[in-house]
Amino acid sequence: MNNYFKQRMQQVSAQYNSLIEQINHPIEAENGVITRYEHPILTNKHAPIMWRYDLNPATNPFCLERIGINAAMNAGAIKWNGRYLLMVRVEAVDRKSFFAVAESPNGIDHFQFWDTPVVLPDTCPEETNVYDMRLTAHEDGWIYGTFCSERADPNAPAGDLSSAIAKTGIVRTHDFITWERLPDLDSPTQQRNVVLHPEFVEGKYALYTRPQDDFINAGGCNGIGWALIEAIEHAVIKEEQIIERRIYHTIKEVKNGEGPHPIKTDRGWLHLAHGVRGCAAGLRYVLYLYMTALEDPTHIIAEPAGYLLAPEDEERIGDVSNVLFSNGWIVEADGKILLYYASSDTRMHVATSTVAILVDYCMHTPADGLRSAATVSSIMDLIQQNKAFTEGLYE
Amino acid sequence: MNNYFKQRMQQVSAQYNSLIEQINHPIEAENGVITRYEHPILTNKHAPIMWRYDLNPATNPFCLERIGINAAMNAGAIKWNGRYLLMVRVEAVDRKSFFAVAESPNGIDHFQFWDTPVVLPDTCPEETNVYDMRLTAHEDGWIYGTFCSERADPNAPAGDLSSAIAKTGIVRTHDFITWERLPDLDSPTQQRNVVLHPEFVEGKYALYTRPQDDFINAGGCNGIGWALIEAIEHAVIKEEQIIERRIYHTIKEVKNGEGPHPIKTDRGWLHLAHGVRGCAAGLRYVLYLYMTALEDPTHIIAEPAGYLLAPEDEERIGDVSNVLFSNGWIVEADGKILLYYASSDTRMHVATSTVAILVDYCMHTPADGLRSAATVSSIMDLIQQNKAFTEGLYE
Repeated sequence: MNNYFKQRMQQVSAQYNSLIEQINHPIEAENGVITRYEHPILTNKHAPIMWRYDLNPATNPFCLERIGINAAMNAGAIKWNGRYLLMVRVEAVDRKSFFAVAESPNGIDHFQFWDTPVVLPDTCPEETNVYDMRLTAHEDGWIYGTFCSERADPNAPAGDLSSAIAKTGIVRTHDFITWERLPDLDSPTQQRNVVLHPEFVEGKYALYTRPQDDFINAGGCNGIGWALIEAIEHAVIKEEQIIERRIYHTIKEVKNGEGPHPIKTDRGWLHLAHGVRGCAAGLRYVLYLYMTALEDPTHIIAEPAGYLLAPEDEERIGDVSNVLFSNGWIVEADGKILLYYASSDTRMHVATSTVAILVDYCMHTPADGLRSAATVSSIMDLIQQNKAFTEGLYE
Repeated sequence: MNNYFKQRMQQVSAQYNSLIEQINHPIEAENGVITRYEHPILTNKHAPIMWRYDLNPATNPFCLERIGINAAMNAGAIKWNGRYLLMVRVEAVDRKSFFAVAESPNGIDHFQFWDTPVVLPDTCPEETNVYDMRLTAHEDGWIYGTFCSERADPNAPAGDLSSAIAKTGIVRTHDFITWERLPDLDSPTQQRNVVLHPEFVEGKYALYTRPQDDFINAGGCNGIGWALIEAIEHAVIKEEQIIERRIYHTIKEVKNGEGPHPIKTDRGWLHLAHGVRGCAAGLRYVLYLYMTALEDPTHIIAEPAGYLLAPEDEERIGDVSNVLFSNGWIVEADGKILLYYASSDTRMHVATSTVAILVDYCMHTPADGLRSAATVSSIMDLIQQNKAFTEGLYE
């Protein structure tokens, strides 16, 4: 090995190791609801050296990176045998996404990719891109992944190389290494953001869906749907109801979609979703919570107005700016919640809270009054009530 | 002269001088391919004081800037008589672009505009805006500039004040001071990003083109074209072939365009281009390389997957965020390459590499497999090969 090669590799390796060993300190939110952390937990620079460099000095005399990684984002999450695993959407510089497992000893820092990316059974030759996997440890004993499987629209007009079709891929595993790919979800519409509910409902598999008229636009499809599925091995949407609607002049006016599957609490199912609105700079994606009844996951029992998390500081900027997206969270036995979210299609972050706090937030944040006058009215009510409680409070 | 005026001017002048004298330090890329530099090389603040201020205290008692400059971007580049020259697209605060030469003693820092902007012969009354000049020292002995000449679309519907038409202007010079303007390129389609090849091919002038259906969209036109031209004094595109296609779900899905003219290497012509994709935040422009055969500049012999450079850190934000664009590079006799690029339509940067490294990068980076599965497969192959070479590497 030449000296130049060895020195370069030592340098690259030292940079990589210092990144992996970085400790992540909490930043308490003023609002008390959720705690962000100082650093992203995963970036393109977390991709292992073995994935990127040809380590043979004879074939790589300049010691160049051969396969560049562009981003790490939109990760599914699971605590599995005491280990914190993320199923990350890794995007190479060629714009193709794939899945890779990253593991941390504490769920907060020291995330490190496993030795190899996930190799999914390649069952669909027209599938061009895969992304945004939701993980569900289902009560049937399997761990499922549902993800977007994208391919070119065969009916696109000549010269339109962007039109695509979104289908939902379904895979399952017991060990995150060997994956069984099931047939794609059979749906009358395009589907993205499909999430498997962890329990049987009426003896059936249950899916959160997000029907859409075309690849980008929700069109006439108005929110997060729900469908019961007879057999997951040949999943067919026969009936679909919209349970969580998008609404004019809210944070979810243009689109919304289920995040990871909801967390079961004694007050109901706690849901995390993304809401999208348009603006002069494009779309803006924020994260919000809602709750549904324990006995009926389609029945909304609480929906606090507005967002839980919106892009802040460095989160605002990236390959696709003004985006927070989450498709993974973990709840601990003691009620601690680790919420994993990506910022601007570029990097992964963690935020922490508890079941008790997020349920309280859902139950006691005023609902969206859908008008400026209603928001003012909520504030006036709060001020009025507060007058009895200010004495001695700030001393 | 009043004291206030004098003090203001001393201050303005000191700021300007410290900007011009700023030394630019390299930032080695981890990937070994290309080196960025700490500071932009040109910004709106590099515009000479003489262009901007009325220095007569009698007519400018508040010592105000009279003509504001908004941006310095998309520069052509040439090494000419040992001097590093950029043909900069300077944009005034009125949104009109014009050309100005900036010169540096080393190509890296101390860039300074010449005393006056370039005054092109004003031969076209409907021409509203000019920008993005490519420079070519042609073997016919002239230095040519090809640029976009934009004018309002006379057939725009009532109330549409944005529709425009892109034509290609052609000028030539021997000294960068006196310019001859030739008739605009006669093309069956609108044209932007037209670049003159430096050599005769089959005894003719050769142009890289980018036909487009309308001002913004490539439409049915599918990439970087090539056309042979009988006479540059009346340049007419009679036949045009697409040599470098845009492709679904790549970094060049929506548009691509030739950067500066390619560099001749002993392995082939080394091309720099921009690729554009759409996203929820608008268009994203990145820079990529490809190579064509020495004996046939239309025949692609290498195209590494993905981008060479994409917006990073401060480059991500500007008047038009998420854009890198290059129409100028210089190759030194020793093989060093100075690549000039603009970020987000706002400022100019330099990055350096060598012919040997960029050719190695082109020849040995895996090509785009066009599917997630292919990218995973490339990574798995690399990991497998690397297993024999890890011992002792990081010690």
